[in-house]
Amino acid sequence: MIKVAIHGASGYTGFELIRLLLKHPEVELVTLTSRKFAGIPISEVFPALRGVCSLVCEDFSENEVGKKADLVFAALPHQASMNAVPSLLDSGAKVIDLSADFRFRDEKTYSEWYQHHSTPELLNEAVYGLPEIYRDKIKKARLVGNPGCYPTSVILAMAPLVKAGIVELESIIADSKSGVSGAGRGLSLTTHFCEVNEGFKAYKVAEHRHTPEMEQELSALAGKPIKISFTPHLVPMTRGILSTVYANLNPGVSVDTVTDVFKEFYEDAPFVRVLGDGVLPNTLYVRGTNFCDIGWKIDNRVNRIVVVSAIDNLTRGASGQAVCNMNLMFGLDETTGLLRTVWQP
Amino acid sequence: MIKVAIHGASGYTGFELIRLLLKHPEVELVTLTSRKFAGIPISEVFPALRGVCSLVCEDFSENEVGKKADLVFAALPHQASMNAVPSLLDSGAKVIDLSADFRFRDEKTYSEWYQHHSTPELLNEAVYGLPEIYRDKIKKARLVGNPGCYPTSVILAMAPLVKAGIVELESIIADSKSGVSGAGRGLSLTTHFCEVNEGFKAYKVAEHRHTPEMEQELSALAGKPIKISFTPHLVPMTRGILSTVYANLNPGVSVDTVTDVFKEFYEDAPFVRVLGDGVLPNTLYVRGTNFCDIGWKIDNRVNRIVVVSAIDNLTRGASGQAVCNMNLMFGLDETTGLLRTVWQP
Amino acid sequence: MIKVAIHGASGYTGFELIRLLLKHPEVELVTLTSRKFAGIPISEVFPALRGVCSLVCEDFSENEVGKKADLVFAALPHQASMNAVPSLLDSGAKVIDLSADFRFRDEKTYSEWYQHHSTPELLNEAVYGLPEIYRDKIKKARLVGNPGCYPTSVILAMAPLVKAGIVELESIIADSKSGVSGAGRGLSLTTHFCEVNEGFKAYKVAEHRHTPEMEQELSALAGKPIKISFTPHLVPMTRGILSTVYANLNPGVSVDTVTDVFKEFYEDAPFVRVLGDGVLPNTLYVRGTNFCDIGWKIDNRVNRIVVVSAIDNLTRGASGQAVCNMNLMFGLDETTGLLRTVWQP
Amino acid sequence: MIKVAIHGASGYTGFELIRLLLKHPEVELVTLTSRKFAGIPISEVFPALRGVCSLVCEDFSENEVGKKADLVFAALPHQASMNAVPSLLDSGAKVIDLSADFRFRDEKTYSEWYQHHSTPELLNEAVYGLPEIYRDKIKKARLVGNPGCYPTSVILAMAPLVKAGIVELESIIADSKSGVSGAGRGLSLTTHFCEVNEGFKAYKVAEHRHTPEMEQELSALAGKPIKISFTPHLVPMTRGILSTVYANLNPGVSVDTVTDVFKEFYEDAPFVRVLGDGVLPNTLYVRGTNFCDIGWKIDNRVNRIVVVSAIDNLTRGASGQAVCNMNLMFGLDETTGLLRTVWQP
Repeated sequence: MIKVAIHGASGYTGFELIRLLLKHPEVELVTLTSRKFAGIPISEVFPALRGVCSLVCEDFSENEVGKKADLVFAALPHQASMNAVPSLLDSGAKVIDLSADFRFRDEKTYSEWYQHHSTPELLNEAVYGLPEIYRDKIKKARLVGNPGCYPTSVILAMAPLVKAGIVELESIIADSKSGVSGAGRGLSLTTHFCEVNEGFKAYKVAEHRHTPEMEQELSALAGKPIKISFTPHLVPMTRGILSTVYANLNPGVSVDTVTDVFKEFYEDAPFVRVLGDGVLPNTLYVRGTNFCDIGWKIDNRVNRIVVVSAIDNLTRGASGQAVCNMNLMFGLDETTGLLRTVWQP
Repeated sequence: MIKVAIHGASGYTGFELIRLLLKHPEVELVTLTSRKFAGIPISEVFPALRGVCSLVCEDFSENEVGKKADLVFAALPHQASMNAVPSLLDSGAKVIDLSADFRFRDEKTYSEWYQHHSTPELLNEAVYGLPEIYRDKIKKARLVGNPGCYPTSVILAMAPLVKAGIVELESIIADSKSGVSGAGRGLSLTTHFCEVNEGFKAYKVAEHRHTPEMEQELSALAGKPIKISFTPHLVPMTRGILSTVYANLNPGVSVDTVTDVFKEFYEDAPFVRVLGDGVLPNTLYVRGTNFCDIGWKIDNRVNRIVVVSAIDNLTRGASGQAVCNMNLMFGLDETTGLLRTVWQP
Repeated sequence: MIKVAIHGASGYTGFELIRLLLKHPEVELVTLTSRKFAGIPISEVFPALRGVCSLVCEDFSENEVGKKADLVFAALPHQASMNAVPSLLDSGAKVIDLSADFRFRDEKTYSEWYQHHSTPELLNEAVYGLPEIYRDKIKKARLVGNPGCYPTSVILAMAPLVKAGIVELESIIADSKSGVSGAGRGLSLTTHFCEVNEGFKAYKVAEHRHTPEMEQELSALAGKPIKISFTPHLVPMTRGILSTVYANLNPGVSVDTVTDVFKEFYEDAPFVRVLGDGVLPNTLYVRGTNFCDIGWKIDNRVNRIVVVSAIDNLTRGASGQAVCNMNLMFGLDETTGLLRTVWQP
Repeated sequence: MIKVAIHGASGYTGFELIRLLLKHPEVELVTLTSRKFAGIPISEVFPALRGVCSLVCEDFSENEVGKKADLVFAALPHQASMNAVPSLLDSGAKVIDLSADFRFRDEKTYSEWYQHHSTPELLNEAVYGLPEIYRDKIKKARLVGNPGCYPTSVILAMAPLVKAGIVELESIIADSKSGVSGAGRGLSLTTHFCEVNEGFKAYKVAEHRHTPEMEQELSALAGKPIKISFTPHLVPMTRGILSTVYANLNPGVSVDTVTDVFKEFYEDAPFVRVLGDGVLPNTLYVRGTNFCDIGWKIDNRVNRIVVVSAIDNLTRGASGQAVCNMNLMFGLDETTGLLRTVWQP
């Protein structure tokens, strides 16, 4: 059994980790921390856990947390994570960090979009936790930077096309739509029921911090720098991200080529369901799962491809993907504890 | 492994059974039937099942279904079920029927509220599948009549008080609120998104067919006939039932007595979470689970108790309870495959 | 034109007043106040008002507000209102107070359920602003205590029966369900989208402060003290209250008697739509309107009547009713500016 | 008073017309028709109208309808409209057609995307009812083809930029999101509450029939043929469309230029609220109104502009715009009966 701690367990990604780990056959959940709820049973923070999880939130102490656990999930805000992770590693635990702090290979990109990085030396060691691209590196990693929710959905939608070199790299536009849980459990007018319900909006247009993360990975696949347009939107629902990604096709690319490119790229990926040309995903069908569903349509009139991907932002976009990374880091099958969890309606 | 068939798999209770059984460690799902979708993969009927369940819907044939399976879940409309169950039993399978057809011990009650019963002799054999009350009988049953969603929530809320004889029996009023999935997957203006969304209503006031089911079980516990008021309402959400049940307290009944009565009644019930006096449930906290959460408040000003219970109508109110009954019928622990499945948000 | 001020305009009842008054043919909206948003255009507080209302929020100053306006709507929290109203009156304005501070005739009831009352002498003068009962007094009032949202729905459902003396007075149970806007625009986990969405719960069972307000009015109609049970619930939708009210019928009361009693009581009430026996309301059909829809069903099996009423909590339950009271206080037809505003879907 | 008929009043655009016309100071609603509900009071079809509208649905008879009314709103499905409109015109009424049948100037485009057109000669006469572009022509029109919901939002977002010639015409991509009422009141699994709620999806990617309508109008403004990418999505809410429209900016176009272009284009448009650079709309703020809110953001990193527009699909996207067109056709101010109707939350 892998001994697991969740450092910062009182947010939605914390809850989602607990939900998934309670069912995981190879995990023992040993410690949950929360500065705000220290001393409080987690089942008071999340009443769904009554009778199911008897752990009590502990105060933050990286040294102790790291000693008790083989693996620590750091579910902290960025910047807080950057400061906690070195101690966790020093005490001997492996770490999967769900913040943005260890997702960037280039310190400069991080500091431009976020802030000064206090432990840039760890950026070289950290592995970007997208199994479909970095499976082998993740298996050997001591520190994984778990991908952002939007980047997961956009990178998986575009990676095969970019790697195959069949789209115009400067034409990529990602139009993404997220459920409200992506905004976290903190209080603001933005997440007040009456301000969200029955409304739809875009936000942080052309300035969302997930943009450079998408660009880092797509550039690596392309072998040259790519810049993309990214627009996030808020959907009046709790969970799910749908990304609609546009790119101009290179001359002469056929439907069959596109299909082959997707099928081949995801041949060994148990969590990507390639739906095919004209078959379109719905976030409802991936709710609570680690799946990313991908469909597309080629618009011959304008020689453009529209790829649509759907994930659950809390599962595949955060905690489910983190559990998948844990599986890889501990020599388990990637799907352990994750695959047969579906939900509809 | 128990070989299991779902007869009538294309509705929401069918889906919920598939969802739960796919994760069940002791079950092999061998057959799904659907008249409407015969020949169609279930993953086309419910796209969430893509890559997770490869079964193809088979046409109805009770003899064959019953031969292939050790247990058949009949997820048919009432009346259809009544006609199918005898053949299923004859072919050697045990049957858990999710319709109303085998819930009543008294043929007359059934015929008054539903229609003529074609196999009344089976009513004597059938066991009402509420484990908290009939656990031992269910273990030995060949045929279980799985309780209705509303009755599950109301009976569990009132059973301890009625059995203890501490409330006025003629004063019971059950005011229940259900999510829309309770109305099934069929098409009607009643379930059209724009007619449900942002609206709240009562329906079938004083004439809902779940009333006599509640009365049957509460009368049995009381040892004399009880009639209750029951009002169902429709909540603009997919899953969940909350029942607010009122009764006048007998003179001199204290808060402590009430607490003791609930704790004792549910001492050995892994799926009832007794929250206590002044602690109130929320359907959100039981979503996707087999739990029934129960809290209450005594209103001393009017000497009345208000008991509030919450269940997921598709899980505890139908398919989860059916799986629990299967566990009992096959000598497994009641909670096998069910307990650690939580969901919030 | 009536010159109108809204004192405390930045909450949901403030917005609703603005929405209704902008369309009112006999009103000039002269002043909006908000301590929090002083100096900010109201169209920044509520972006729906861009291009429609150019007023800028002013800081609190009861003397000035009262001088500028013929009528002030006080849309403040209780206690704050109590302190502001005397100055408003002194400066010559009439006042409709939307808080609880001037709804009670008995200072003791107020102090038991709320807190010490600083201006109890005004309680004698204030008129309870339910037009169906106090129309004539409202016409002459200088100060109106505008009814609470839940009391409006419950009193209107029960008033005819209680006044006619055809129900058992000690048997009344009001089970009410409200949309989330009733909780106001303030921030709390209770109104966080992900904590409300897809969940249903009861709250403040047997201790909600609207209880004594219902009891005051029903007792007055009955001519003797009545105590009732009241249970509020939260519905995952923005607007609307549905109240399901139970009472034992006196012996021999027929369906026709009940119908006559309702029709007669509401004969001259333009904003009550008496639906009749077996016809049930839906909050969707009263959204954005000042209507109260009332239907009922007699349950002969238990000799009990179930009355169901539906209102929009922000319109009929607060601001629409306040505008109706204003109409009466200024000699206008009760329906001016209100009647033909419907909304569905 | 203008005598108005609604031909096909039982759908959501029919209801929305009734809602708006009941409040219109210059309109008398004389006739509602519905084949399905002939002989039934409209207040039974839409219970919100109880006590507010006493009209009874009449069966279809174009001759009679046209004779009774000065203006007929045809709210029929396409093809049905094409067959009804000539008779309506012949009987002397003016017609505003809410279907797609009279929106195209080129018969060939219509037949390619819809079907054979039975009265192509009327296509020359019909005016496309977008007041911001065709105000003068609408004033003189006998027949107006009322724009589609998606085209209204996309054309208004792009018209100023295309007309000013400051974007690359072949680069336009419109990513639109609509509430469920856009799918109409008919029954299908697509609009079943449990299939829509908590899910988000794209549909008819690269093949939606509103595409050529957008292209017709943007091409006319550009003075040369434009083809665009258009992707519609379904949002789990009742009303509202948000369109996010992308285009590459021509070299050297500044933020100020863009602002000037928008301000100038909509200088005299009472129903377009130009929010400006970096200020983004929300469908919540235009709900129930005829406004189109437009904001944008220039993404200098990729030299692309992202324009976001929000409308209410039933009001500005259908019936509100139709009423606005009626106002113009009868010499009224464009805003009569429409402007001060706001709604939030």
